[in-house]
Amino acid sequence: MESPKLKAFLPVFYLVWSDDLLTQKELGTLSEFIRSQDWLSDHEQEILLSNVDISSPPSRQQLAKWKQEIQKSLQANPEATGIFDLSVWLSNDDESIIRLKPKFSKLENDLGILGDEIVTNFSSHTKTLTSGYQTISSFDIQKLTAILDGPQALIIRKVKLLLSRPEFAYETSTDINVYREKVYEWCKTLARENLGNMGYPHQYGGGENMAEYFAIMETLSYHDLSLVIKFGVQFGLWGMSVQSLGTEKHHRKYLADIGSLKIPGCFAMTETNHGSNVKGIETTATYDQNNKTFVIHTPHPEARKEYIGNAAVHGQMATVFAKLIIKGKDYGVNAFIVSLRDTNGEVQPGIVIGDCGHKMGLNGVDNGTIIFNQVIIPKENMLDRFASVNEAGEFESPIPSDNRRFFTMLGTLVGGRIGIPRSALSAAKSGLAIAIRYSDRRRQFGPEGGLEVPILNYRMHQRRLMPLLARSYAIHFGLQYLTRRYLGKSESEMQEIEALAAGMKSYSTWSTTDILQECREACGGKGYLSENRLNALKNDTEIYTTFEGDNTVLMQLVAKNRLAEFRKAFGQMNAVGMIYYVYENAKTALSEKNPIVTRKTDEAHLLDDQFHLQALEHREKTTLASAARRIKKLIDSGLDSYDAFNVTQHQMVDLARAWLDRIIFEQFQLAVVKVEEEKVRAALIRLQQLFALSVIEQNKGWYLEDGYMEAVKTKAIRKMVNQLCWDIRKDAVPLVQAFDIPDSCLAAPIAF
Amino acid sequence: MESPKLKAFLPVFYLVWSDDLLTQKELGTLSEFIRSQDWLSDHEQEILLSNVDISSPPSRQQLAKWKQEIQKSLQANPEATGIFDLSVWLSNDDESIIRLKPKFSKLENDLGILGDEIVTNFSSHTKTLTSGYQTISSFDIQKLTAILDGPQALIIRKVKLLLSRPEFAYETSTDINVYREKVYEWCKTLARENLGNMGYPHQYGGGENMAEYFAIMETLSYHDLSLVIKFGVQFGLWGMSVQSLGTEKHHRKYLADIGSLKIPGCFAMTETNHGSNVKGIETTATYDQNNKTFVIHTPHPEARKEYIGNAAVHGQMATVFAKLIIKGKDYGVNAFIVSLRDTNGEVQPGIVIGDCGHKMGLNGVDNGTIIFNQVIIPKENMLDRFASVNEAGEFESPIPSDNRRFFTMLGTLVGGRIGIPRSALSAAKSGLAIAIRYSDRRRQFGPEGGLEVPILNYRMHQRRLMPLLARSYAIHFGLQYLTRRYLGKSESEMQEIEALAAGMKSYSTWSTTDILQECREACGGKGYLSENRLNALKNDTEIYTTFEGDNTVLMQLVAKNRLAEFRKAFGQMNAVGMIYYVYENAKTALSEKNPIVTRKTDEAHLLDDQFHLQALEHREKTTLASAARRIKKLIDSGLDSYDAFNVTQHQMVDLARAWLDRIIFEQFQLAVVKVEEEKVRAALIRLQQLFALSVIEQNKGWYLEDGYMEAVKTKAIRKMVNQLCWDIRKDAVPLVQAFDIPDSCLAAPIAF
Repeated sequence: MESPKLKAFLPVFYLVWSDDLLTQKELGTLSEFIRSQDWLSDHEQEILLSNVDISSPPSRQQLAKWKQEIQKSLQANPEATGIFDLSVWLSNDDESIIRLKPKFSKLENDLGILGDEIVTNFSSHTKTLTSGYQTISSFDIQKLTAILDGPQALIIRKVKLLLSRPEFAYETSTDINVYREKVYEWCKTLARENLGNMGYPHQYGGGENMAEYFAIMETLSYHDLSLVIKFGVQFGLWGMSVQSLGTEKHHRKYLADIGSLKIPGCFAMTETNHGSNVKGIETTATYDQNNKTFVIHTPHPEARKEYIGNAAVHGQMATVFAKLIIKGKDYGVNAFIVSLRDTNGEVQPGIVIGDCGHKMGLNGVDNGTIIFNQVIIPKENMLDRFASVNEAGEFESPIPSDNRRFFTMLGTLVGGRIGIPRSALSAAKSGLAIAIRYSDRRRQFGPEGGLEVPILNYRMHQRRLMPLLARSYAIHFGLQYLTRRYLGKSESEMQEIEALAAGMKSYSTWSTTDILQECREACGGKGYLSENRLNALKNDTEIYTTFEGDNTVLMQLVAKNRLAEFRKAFGQMNAVGMIYYVYENAKTALSEKNPIVTRKTDEAHLLDDQFHLQALEHREKTTLASAARRIKKLIDSGLDSYDAFNVTQHQMVDLARAWLDRIIFEQFQLAVVKVEEEKVRAALIRLQQLFALSVIEQNKGWYLEDGYMEAVKTKAIRKMVNQLCWDIRKDAVPLVQAFDIPDSCLAAPIAF
Repeated sequence: MESPKLKAFLPVFYLVWSDDLLTQKELGTLSEFIRSQDWLSDHEQEILLSNVDISSPPSRQQLAKWKQEIQKSLQANPEATGIFDLSVWLSNDDESIIRLKPKFSKLENDLGILGDEIVTNFSSHTKTLTSGYQTISSFDIQKLTAILDGPQALIIRKVKLLLSRPEFAYETSTDINVYREKVYEWCKTLARENLGNMGYPHQYGGGENMAEYFAIMETLSYHDLSLVIKFGVQFGLWGMSVQSLGTEKHHRKYLADIGSLKIPGCFAMTETNHGSNVKGIETTATYDQNNKTFVIHTPHPEARKEYIGNAAVHGQMATVFAKLIIKGKDYGVNAFIVSLRDTNGEVQPGIVIGDCGHKMGLNGVDNGTIIFNQVIIPKENMLDRFASVNEAGEFESPIPSDNRRFFTMLGTLVGGRIGIPRSALSAAKSGLAIAIRYSDRRRQFGPEGGLEVPILNYRMHQRRLMPLLARSYAIHFGLQYLTRRYLGKSESEMQEIEALAAGMKSYSTWSTTDILQECREACGGKGYLSENRLNALKNDTEIYTTFEGDNTVLMQLVAKNRLAEFRKAFGQMNAVGMIYYVYENAKTALSEKNPIVTRKTDEAHLLDDQFHLQALEHREKTTLASAARRIKKLIDSGLDSYDAFNVTQHQMVDLARAWLDRIIFEQFQLAVVKVEEEKVRAALIRLQQLFALSVIEQNKGWYLEDGYMEAVKTKAIRKMVNQLCWDIRKDAVPLVQAFDIPDSCLAAPIAF
């Protein structure tokens, strides 16, 4: 192989033996090629053929030598665009080789070793775009934290300091008894610090500050989520049911002791047979006028209370939801205070407690079942804000409809649907902080001969995490908005706010499930080790999509609320007309739906928040009008309305989601506009853009079907999403640092 | 209110007080309306107004009475299409009411109480389409089971009987030490039954039957997955690394004892710093010619072996991957047998074992870390099938390239990428069996006045579960195909089969993650209780997307293989031309891409498997050609190939997925065609149609962008997916029964 013209074969030989190309077929192709070259002497052919004999491969040293020669040739020909260029140089520009170009090209084609790409295998590109990229904080992190914390910054700080105390070190025992006791002790500490009663009136020792109560729930959620749920059961569900459904006599008697955790309690609504359809619960509270008592009773095993937090071990009392029966007549679901255990923790007569046992997560919470066997409670234990039994033993209520009364009662408890999505968001932020910090440091693979590259530099990795980071920021501002609406609510807004809470609860908790799934995968094996906390975060929040209302069921409620609003808004027209009107209007009349706009792909347009808002609004309006029209059509065609709603369930979820997408984006936008610090605002704007474009991209099928965009535009959006992911990656670590999660809470070794 | 013409107001009054409509605004609207009716006397107006006074609502009895009257009117007017019809009847066809129609309609509009839908609120539709629907098995379940089990039916039966023995009752202890010992005992039982050594040669006591080995893995996966992984580590990874990478002397010395579990062992490849990029591992095996030994050494803590199954407690030996160093020269990664513990379980000198501790799942497997501190092993412990050190102390190998040798070694271990996706599928089947059987029995909500309805009758619930059931069936046949290809492999097919295994591993494990997520949510709170097994199924399989190769990385490998195949297939053309050729061809020349077809929506066409296959092939070819063109363009524009591949990572995953979608569909189709029993075939065809249309629907954005379909067609496909979900729901329970999962394995109380 010392003859220059033979050396022309080195690149091909090297590739065939070194790469994954070597099969009998490729060696055969190559042998055949050599034999067909009549300008080679027999001897030369023999030499060449000896190098493509599968039974006698070249030695390792030989291969290394070939590679050196090829690299030399590449250094001399940095502009080489294919193997043939190298072959010519190696042959000292041998005429017979140069003449061979078409045949050589065909060979390269047959072997699949063509183009620049193969050539770059030989070069040492230690510096590439990908490998040179890294974290550069473009803004002041503390300023962003201040924006996120807002007016609750002080209480947030207080909770974070508390959680950083050594006693709040995570419990690692897998014994659920140990874990449950630890969580209970933590709750007592929080009660002592006056955090539990933050939402109760001053006169019962509370802070009378629901804004701070929600901020406490959210901040606690950077820590153990069993603690958050146990805390929420005691001070939220149990305490606030007494506060919202009871009257002054109950407040006076219980609220202080609930706030101090002197009376641990439960919220006993769900039954085995009735979870989502809670109106159908079967526990009875039968009034006895002679003794002025109620008899609480579980009519059959499947009517037992189930999943009740605090029931299995610690709860002493409970707000029990039961159908009120007076003289054999059913007055619908009402709430009663029932003692479950005495102060020594002994279960009361007639009460049978079961333990839900080990769960997927939240094992620090003692969920249990409760069966009531003719349990007698005094009359005053009825929580009688919305209904009562008068002295004559008659039912009284300012709300005549049982149905309506029940939903009014539930409406007062909507705070839980604010606490949970905010808790879910904190868990998502923890997951993102762990995954992004790890991905910024974890190096794997790299350019030939260069250092390995942080995995966050990989586009696919960015694609998986950056849109979720953007979504978390968007949801943050969406939840701030929900909280403000709730705190400043007036009676007439309640239905809208309930729908908003139901929707945001679903949106945020589903998002957390998605985010923690991606985070676990993004951290590979490390993400599977419990020490890195994705296990707890993921499994503890898994049930968030179910409790406080199953997300799919809640989304149906949201959709029905939207349809009702839609009907009211267009009440001035007749029934058929208005539906067609809005639909057709949405379909054609919008100025943004002309060919110039549907094909518009310039960067300024794609990044324009007006375009984003219009696109989201268009989807919101169109899906709503289209669902309304479809339901009407189905009912007109003779379908029962129950069936009609069933047939359109999928559309209902879509329209609810479209509504939430628009609201969340709008709130993000409104929040960002207010940011004064320019660099912080710029960083947030990129996230806002990525959030909007990701939502649009996820729904590109819808936009194309609708004709709102053409393919050229959805493709341009995909590219823009990629570009934004790449741009935001630089800021990704600072953006999760801005969550300001205490190190002791984040805790995962891979995050540090 | 006894006057008939006043009774005309009852329906409106009832709705306002009973429903969720009551706000100040609505009552105001209503009061205003009453006041503006000059045909009413002052007294009559007063009576009416007294019924819309928020401070004095009607009593509960009053409301009930109203409802009775309205229902009476509805019985008399079953064709009523709005509230006004009822009002007219209630007023005894009072002339002044009839004349009021336009005003009344406007009122109904303003209050949002218009149309048939409102009227149906009053009727008792105890029988609806939705509520009457139920499970009806359309085929012989056992015949379908026989088709699924195929030629391995006997060994599958044997394993199922074994797993049904009392000793295989699930371990419920949360103490990982107890759990690990139990799993180890189970493994010993399986070894005694000659299941572990099923793949080893007869001469070492094995069954020499890899088809049965895979069937065993798959069937065991209906039981505890820690058992499956521990089993796979011992008999697959450890045993088969000795079998595949070692030579006869190793087989003779170890295989029988590995197969009997006399020598528990490990597969020590992954290191803390190198998981996906395993070629970069840093453990060294330095040859000492004087002593004819190797020195195994961990150069720094981040080069320790990590996540090694069987290492923390039970492993006595390990196949250790390390860079071979001879006279200071690096000869790439090779494999060595190293003793970790003596037969008493004492850790050998120089070995430092760590425990990975608690994990998200698979806590019955003792994963550990291993550090080697200058551990000396004899020369014969090198697994020397692909490389060896000769008597002179020189390196020898039939494969000159270190890179290529390493990937050849890995290629022999590809069996793991068949066992894992098959195990993942079994877990998904268990999840579907639990969720579908529960959803068929669980009732929640129902039509007004009727019984509650099985939640599997809800369209959204069907939408969530039926396509996943179809996908599981499809993957089943896809994995059967992969297994057949692997068992019948020839050298020249190895690259394709490796790509197929990598792709199917990713496809199946991601699918399992999706499926178990939906199943958990579909089972609500019950799905969260550990007793119902979705916890274990979900958390144990969570790491399947990472081990045996991170899915995202594997999909890149699949894509690169596809690109290489693409180049070879079009080798007869020149580089630039061929890319454009295929791309343009795919873009325009296909016969199915004319306007008649792109808009074709008749049922026969939408359900036609030729249409499905063409659509999937079109996406496969186009995404491949488009990625090839894009990479070329990027490199031509001066980008480093490493960067070019990074920029297109997202497309790479898409093209790999498109390839797999097509293969899996095609294999499903080929399997179904062979089914002789008509009713079974019909049931399978519905699943096949749902699988294809679901894939197309998921990718509708792509099809619309490409122009392969128009909106009218993608919308029709959405409807057809809904229809298939509805149809398949009837067969859903029999379809999961056909998986024939032993009751003792399924175990979840909610499934029975």
